[in-house]
Amino acid sequence: MNANNYKLILAYDGTDYFGWQKTRMGPSIQETLTQVLHRLTQEEIVPEAASRTDRGVHAAGQTIHFGSNKPVTLRGLNALLPDDIRAVRLEEASADFHATLHASGKEYRYQIDLGPVQDPFERLYAWHIHVPLDLEKMKTAAAHLIGTHDFTAFANEPEENPICAIDEISFEGNLQIRLKGNRFLYRMARNLVGTLIYVGCGKIEADQILEILASKDRKQAGVTAPAHGLTLHEVFYKK
Amino acid sequence: MNANNYKLILAYDGTDYFGWQKTRMGPSIQETLTQVLHRLTQEEIVPEAASRTDRGVHAAGQTIHFGSNKPVTLRGLNALLPDDIRAVRLEEASADFHATLHASGKEYRYQIDLGPVQDPFERLYAWHIHVPLDLEKMKTAAAHLIGTHDFTAFANEPEENPICAIDEISFEGNLQIRLKGNRFLYRMARNLVGTLIYVGCGKIEADQILEILASKDRKQAGVTAPAHGLTLHEVFYKK
Repeated sequence: MNANNYKLILAYDGTDYFGWQKTRMGPSIQETLTQVLHRLTQEEIVPEAASRTDRGVHAAGQTIHFGSNKPVTLRGLNALLPDDIRAVRLEEASADFHATLHASGKEYRYQIDLGPVQDPFERLYAWHIHVPLDLEKMKTAAAHLIGTHDFTAFANEPEENPICAIDEISFEGNLQIRLKGNRFLYRMARNLVGTLIYVGCGKIEADQILEILASKDRKQAGVTAPAHGLTLHEVFYKK
Repeated sequence: MNANNYKLILAYDGTDYFGWQKTRMGPSIQETLTQVLHRLTQEEIVPEAASRTDRGVHAAGQTIHFGSNKPVTLRGLNALLPDDIRAVRLEEASADFHATLHASGKEYRYQIDLGPVQDPFERLYAWHIHVPLDLEKMKTAAAHLIGTHDFTAFANEPEENPICAIDEISFEGNLQIRLKGNRFLYRMARNLVGTLIYVGCGKIEADQILEILASKDRKQAGVTAPAHGLTLHEVFYKK
């Protein structure tokens, strides 16, 4: 048992990382953080995150827990982390706090660049779509997705429990899609976005969403939206 | 005389470039555009820009002219340019149009990240300042800079004509500094911003601006703000 169990909020630009989880492919957020924690504490710490974000996916509020017998500070973390990963908040959590198991919900935000020419400042953070989108049809489709459903048709891998409760899909500005739910299956956020875009450009009818959900067939839904438009915005925990 | 004289609006993320002008140091915007124009037309074209942006400075509305005997299209340019440089608008200009000589004014925008922890998504586009700034003092200082003055104290190189008319310095959001003027001396936009920041954090009094202007001494003014916060927003031309 470690003396301290820490809850850490991390923001990162995922462009140069092979996702959260340690991999032989190249640098990961988890490995980078593990190395920094080792330098700070001389301990072998394996931080665990609420969401195993994919390669290229960003985070504004990834939530992590790790145990340590040494004191760790926000300033110490940020002094050693590269500047595309920032420790936003650090607090001592109760001994049993688990970032993954105790998460009650997550919000993802997906950025879309609708300009006729791709904005070079958004190229790493938004999916550029240069065909017109019918936002009203997308809203109708989104309404069909709200609620508790079997989301197998929107998962890229079979899952033991495919039932998720999606509370909110909203459309902000020009254009950000916000998705809130209790849990998301593998690639589900990106598959929901890709399917909504297919509805927006007329490849899928809004009411087909009901059939797609019922089919439990990934091939019925739309494309997996590219990773670089997605940001894990926040992870929610019950008090 | 070329058959066509083109006016081109270019947006670029300056992070990976050694500024507008061709240099032996590494890739420049001008050289990259020259190579693309050569591939499109087989002609030796040297595009000229309204502003020779420094290494690391960005542009949303850099304005360029170039002559060609071949037809050039926006789509052709964007197909060959790297995705951190985008051709935003292309039009045929009058035969005598000159992007540099005919510019009647420019707007620069300087982005500052005031968060306690640097935002990783802003790290390439904003100067992170973690000390509190007194915005009222900065506004007082800015008011002293408005008008037609000898700006020698804000130039990093001696200039033949150091007289500039600054029409507007405004503060938007949290925090963007917008500077509009008929012309800017070498590094002047960044020196104005650095000096305003010195006023904001109390290193220079707002009313000292008058003495600094009168001194014509670069050493009296504040630091040169870092390049990566600056964007050439727009270049103005008389109709």
